[in-house]
Amino acid sequence: MQYNILGKLNYLGNRSGAQMYPELIPVEEALNIINEVNTEPEKEIISLEEANSRVLAQDVEVLLDVPPFDRAAMDGYAVIADDTMTASESEPVQLHVVGEIGAGSIFSETIRSGEALRIATGAPMPHGADAVVMQEQVELEEDEILIKSPLKLHKDVALQGEDIKAGEIILKKNKLLGPHHVALIASAGHKTVEVFKKPDVGVIITGSELTEPSDHLEPGKIINSNRYALKGLLEDTLSVPHIIQCPDDMKTLLQMMEDALKRYDAVITTGGTAVSKGDLSIDAVAELGEVLIHGVAAKPGKPVGFGVAMGKPVFMLSGYPVAAAVQYDSFVRQYLLKMQKINKKFDLIECTAGDDIRSSRGKRNIIRADFHEDEGMVYPIKTKAGINKSIVLSNCYIVAEEGVGQIRKGEKCKVMKYSSLKVC
Amino acid sequence: MQYNILGKLNYLGNRSGAQMYPELIPVEEALNIINEVNTEPEKEIISLEEANSRVLAQDVEVLLDVPPFDRAAMDGYAVIADDTMTASESEPVQLHVVGEIGAGSIFSETIRSGEALRIATGAPMPHGADAVVMQEQVELEEDEILIKSPLKLHKDVALQGEDIKAGEIILKKNKLLGPHHVALIASAGHKTVEVFKKPDVGVIITGSELTEPSDHLEPGKIINSNRYALKGLLEDTLSVPHIIQCPDDMKTLLQMMEDALKRYDAVITTGGTAVSKGDLSIDAVAELGEVLIHGVAAKPGKPVGFGVAMGKPVFMLSGYPVAAAVQYDSFVRQYLLKMQKINKKFDLIECTAGDDIRSSRGKRNIIRADFHEDEGMVYPIKTKAGINKSIVLSNCYIVAEEGVGQIRKGEKCKVMKYSSLKVC
Repeated sequence: MQYNILGKLNYLGNRSGAQMYPELIPVEEALNIINEVNTEPEKEIISLEEANSRVLAQDVEVLLDVPPFDRAAMDGYAVIADDTMTASESEPVQLHVVGEIGAGSIFSETIRSGEALRIATGAPMPHGADAVVMQEQVELEEDEILIKSPLKLHKDVALQGEDIKAGEIILKKNKLLGPHHVALIASAGHKTVEVFKKPDVGVIITGSELTEPSDHLEPGKIINSNRYALKGLLEDTLSVPHIIQCPDDMKTLLQMMEDALKRYDAVITTGGTAVSKGDLSIDAVAELGEVLIHGVAAKPGKPVGFGVAMGKPVFMLSGYPVAAAVQYDSFVRQYLLKMQKINKKFDLIECTAGDDIRSSRGKRNIIRADFHEDEGMVYPIKTKAGINKSIVLSNCYIVAEEGVGQIRKGEKCKVMKYSSLKVC
Repeated sequence: MQYNILGKLNYLGNRSGAQMYPELIPVEEALNIINEVNTEPEKEIISLEEANSRVLAQDVEVLLDVPPFDRAAMDGYAVIADDTMTASESEPVQLHVVGEIGAGSIFSETIRSGEALRIATGAPMPHGADAVVMQEQVELEEDEILIKSPLKLHKDVALQGEDIKAGEIILKKNKLLGPHHVALIASAGHKTVEVFKKPDVGVIITGSELTEPSDHLEPGKIINSNRYALKGLLEDTLSVPHIIQCPDDMKTLLQMMEDALKRYDAVITTGGTAVSKGDLSIDAVAELGEVLIHGVAAKPGKPVGFGVAMGKPVFMLSGYPVAAAVQYDSFVRQYLLKMQKINKKFDLIECTAGDDIRSSRGKRNIIRADFHEDEGMVYPIKTKAGINKSIVLSNCYIVAEEGVGQIRKGEKCKVMKYSSLKVC
């Protein structure tokens, strides 16, 4: 586990003063600090049944030729191609049908010149035969067929090993598996496969004011919506969420965090990062490990924290749902994917501002917006930071990097589509 | 349940003749027949914990204002805005701090002119106060604060109901839920939500030649890879796969199909659609219901079948993995999404052929290919239809519609990215 000591000093250096944010660091610097914390994922062997959307931790070697034998690629008749060389409309070649064979069976005799075997798609070619004539292309009379044009060698025969060959490496380590990859691994002879373990992520939701959804709340209470957002966000990041509820109490938080750090591969906290509560999460991480980041020059998302404790990365997000969402997308998502060796880039698309976009110079501004892809225009959603509704009204972020400042209607800007954040 | 009787006649009309495909119908006509079979999904009430990637079967009404009370949007001091009207650098306004309040607590007294209450983000505004001054913007001396500029009414106060209002419809029926939608439903006061049931799909894999993955196969046996492909494909289509293995035996197939039709919302078969085995699947569906499609003008994918039995749709796919994949993407995927009210369009992108593309006029040709998106070029993968490897080497289909014919290097063509097929 390696990390940049600078972040730590930065934090500690400011910590002794008033209860203020330490110096805000740029988003890119924060990402550099986070990315220096390497975690090597564990591996596990799983049944192929469970392998969709998992990441290979091994190269996959083919154990047997596919197809395992020469087989018919069409329904028809297995013949000797040479027999058909002179076939024509006016002078068809006549062959004697000596039997028939379905897929999964074996025809033990040898086909000789002048003979044909009725054969089903997928059935092994009988010894001697080297081409298949499609049944639609022959005339059948009793046990005789008439062939009216010559067949090339191996016509409609799938040759042994033509799909994949024993010994071949068919898929490489670090490949994210889709349904067809899994099917190919099965074809290669494997029943199980070694993959990287999905990151188990402990999510500690702090806040004594948080309560379960209800149509009637006690005074001062707020519904805990972050637990639902983070559960889904983690699922969509191919991780396994473990939600933990924690009151604003340092002793309890320390206990829960230590427990989560023991059990899980990473920890996320929400709340307790602003100064009001005495920075509970920050203090807990400082107690159990080291805080590397506290506060970035981003809007929203400024109070994000990051540290390493007991060898595990800890992301400290805001309690405000919108800020937490932006922080997750900016700092956590890519890291969790990297933890299972998925290198996913979140591409920015250039488009035109459909309206003036407020953006402060000196910070990275991340503005929820509605991207009309067909017209290449993006419209910012104008709401306050606390407005959760704005996340579901929007379909992208406008990302205005440090130094961009106000963007006027008609000017170019960059957007990141929410749909591009998911692993597909 | 309604369906087009034309398809049925088409099939039956040809069925009495030789064991040949009935007349092939165009892909669009097949899709029209399939889409006329409407199925109304069942609904179920689930915990919000499970609601990510599910589809709303209800409008969601907000049960309470969010925020439920005026609250501080920043850490600072709750004050009366009027008190600060004359504040300036040279003549700051001094207010007396009468106490403090954290999130989740209530301050029961009323703030009067000249007073301030230290307040944490999220805490309810005390009676009397109507603005918050950020703590970074005041000077604190004992129990007094100095404010150096006037505050607007409601400055840094989140007003009751400003995010969402009781009675508002915040999300509509048929919405596919992401993490933030689920969080918003929680905020609206709901612990559960009514969604459409995911389609349970029985997948009957026919073929006596099929066996489990192994490095050594009995003669004539083939590894059953379709079960793995279809399991993953169905998962990625937000459906629930139920894999059933069936030998090439009509009686067994009929039994298994009847059972699957009773239990599940739809049935898919693979294999047994070519003529060699006597069209087992087709015959079974004809026995239990009605075959509406048998054979389409597509390459690969020609032998696809579709019917309705016991009120459920049945898709009959090829045993060949590549053909089955193309048939799934062409006919099944969109239908299963529609079954849960997800209207997903699979967009075609225009690009340039990087090489000659073989395509037969009169059929819809669906060619696995490698799309280099950055350069706008697509390169067909040149292999036979039976080559499973080609699916994982490719990242898109080139779709050459009926009448297109051969496409030359440098000409325009249309591709459908695999990644665009998934629901994100």
